[in-house]
Amino acid sequence: MQSFQDLLSQFELFFSRHHFPESPKTLYEPCSYLLNMGGKRVRPVLCLMSHELFEPLNDNVWNTAMAIELFHNFTLMHDDILDQAPLRRGFPTVHQKYNTATGILSGDVMNIYSYEHLNKINTQYIHAVIALFNRTAIQICEGQQLDMDYEARPYVTMEEYMKMITLKTSVLLGASMKLGALLGGATDGCSGVLYQFGQSLGLAFQLRDDYLDAFGDPHKTGKQTGGDILSNKKTFLSAKAFEMAGEKDLDKLRELLQRKDVDKINDSLHIFQSLGLKEILESEIQKYSQLAFDYLEKVPVISKRKVPLFELAQMLLKREY
Amino acid sequence: MQSFQDLLSQFELFFSRHHFPESPKTLYEPCSYLLNMGGKRVRPVLCLMSHELFEPLNDNVWNTAMAIELFHNFTLMHDDILDQAPLRRGFPTVHQKYNTATGILSGDVMNIYSYEHLNKINTQYIHAVIALFNRTAIQICEGQQLDMDYEARPYVTMEEYMKMITLKTSVLLGASMKLGALLGGATDGCSGVLYQFGQSLGLAFQLRDDYLDAFGDPHKTGKQTGGDILSNKKTFLSAKAFEMAGEKDLDKLRELLQRKDVDKINDSLHIFQSLGLKEILESEIQKYSQLAFDYLEKVPVISKRKVPLFELAQMLLKREY
Repeated sequence: MQSFQDLLSQFELFFSRHHFPESPKTLYEPCSYLLNMGGKRVRPVLCLMSHELFEPLNDNVWNTAMAIELFHNFTLMHDDILDQAPLRRGFPTVHQKYNTATGILSGDVMNIYSYEHLNKINTQYIHAVIALFNRTAIQICEGQQLDMDYEARPYVTMEEYMKMITLKTSVLLGASMKLGALLGGATDGCSGVLYQFGQSLGLAFQLRDDYLDAFGDPHKTGKQTGGDILSNKKTFLSAKAFEMAGEKDLDKLRELLQRKDVDKINDSLHIFQSLGLKEILESEIQKYSQLAFDYLEKVPVISKRKVPLFELAQMLLKREY
Repeated sequence: MQSFQDLLSQFELFFSRHHFPESPKTLYEPCSYLLNMGGKRVRPVLCLMSHELFEPLNDNVWNTAMAIELFHNFTLMHDDILDQAPLRRGFPTVHQKYNTATGILSGDVMNIYSYEHLNKINTQYIHAVIALFNRTAIQICEGQQLDMDYEARPYVTMEEYMKMITLKTSVLLGASMKLGALLGGATDGCSGVLYQFGQSLGLAFQLRDDYLDAFGDPHKTGKQTGGDILSNKKTFLSAKAFEMAGEKDLDKLRELLQRKDVDKINDSLHIFQSLGLKEILESEIQKYSQLAFDYLEKVPVISKRKVPLFELAQMLLKREY
């Protein structure tokens, strides 16, 4: 069993050796540019760790981990266009540095390269892997679409919000776990439980993001507090606020959506605090974290083998940036 | 052996039964909208016809034909954004009717659905089918990138132009043939020859497009003559003109690129005619058509079985619209 850090180093080495063709440079350079920005590589490493619960790493799982990270980066490239994001990880986004056409086409080809890696998987596993990969990819597109649909609305219900982040974020963590497990020969039941672990972890992870945006320490997050509030982004906090607010607060919340001044963030945070949302969100994160740990507990392998996954989950959930 | 028309009707029936999920409607309705515009369905039917040279149609080949047509439509949806095309088949393009974000995301999900169909192929064939499908998909992206790169240049060489249309258009016709053949149990040699047939047919087909734009009868094509000339699109004619022109004509050609007046088309056509390009292009189309027929001749199945493919090829190459 290897730690997250060990596997991350190995993955980075493997990933950096992977090259797109030289030409056309205008197509492939933007792909490398995005990949070279780095990233936490949580998804592929979760896949590797899940596999190691059952079997030593092999080519099948390395190729799957690679496919997952390429696919994830393809979605980032396109999402940045859809969200009109100028920066990612402190660097200009692909469509910003090059242009929108490049962002579209380089993303498309990166997606196909992820299927190139999937096609290297042994015949025994390929149907099951591609089936789960496709289902997840479709769900991610659906989640991104919901996110865009929600943008046009003043507020969304908690149910709608949870559905959106489940699709957009957490299913890929669930699938990463399940893919690693099924390639390790885990039973359907067992790989299903690991999917649930990944999905719960993903929800806790996304809610932690929402928490840090509103209540994080800007010195640690490196981001301005309340960025989501300023851009009227739908978050757990905004959904919950609309759900819980009385008449008076509702009027204020609606009014705040129209504002763009510097006090918008503080005034919103004030309502969130008065509704007790900080504590509610903390307990929600705690709930999904506990759910994740409960699922992991259920996996029928000796506890020692699960230590790296426990450690990673704790690290992700306690992160302050 | 069934004719193109027979197979087309069956494919349309099969294809129209295929439904995306209901929700999110904002994601899937644009997919159906594009598919319902229709199209010649040449690629999937070539795949079916190629398969019928060897074996009766089965689920493997139907799913492959479906994947090919979905993939092709995905590329159309994204290409229309890249080319800023307002119309396709007389209808507003997806990004025009909805918006660019929709065009990107609905295209992405349609691409994934094409892999859903590929994943239904029997284990025996799946690796070979996905390998060729991916290689072709990558080449198409590369071809589209070259097309965009060329836009920024005043002219391209014949070699560059032929490379671009080979990647952008003809490899998918080649792959459609080869996929049908290999799923029919054809030998590598035999399916390779059918790939060459499809690719040559694709080149002749694209060159016929170039021909019709400049010399076609607008009453038959339904399009204004010289649309490519007006938009400075790179075609066989423009590449060849720059290759053959003397000093004086070169100056004129460069000047024409700057013009947007009504006489631009006639003045360009005048140069093309004076360089004998109409005849050169006709003989080039004839060359690739002959090449295609020669490849088909080589396929070791009884001639009778090839009749529908011969007829389709002749129809495509003689088309006046």
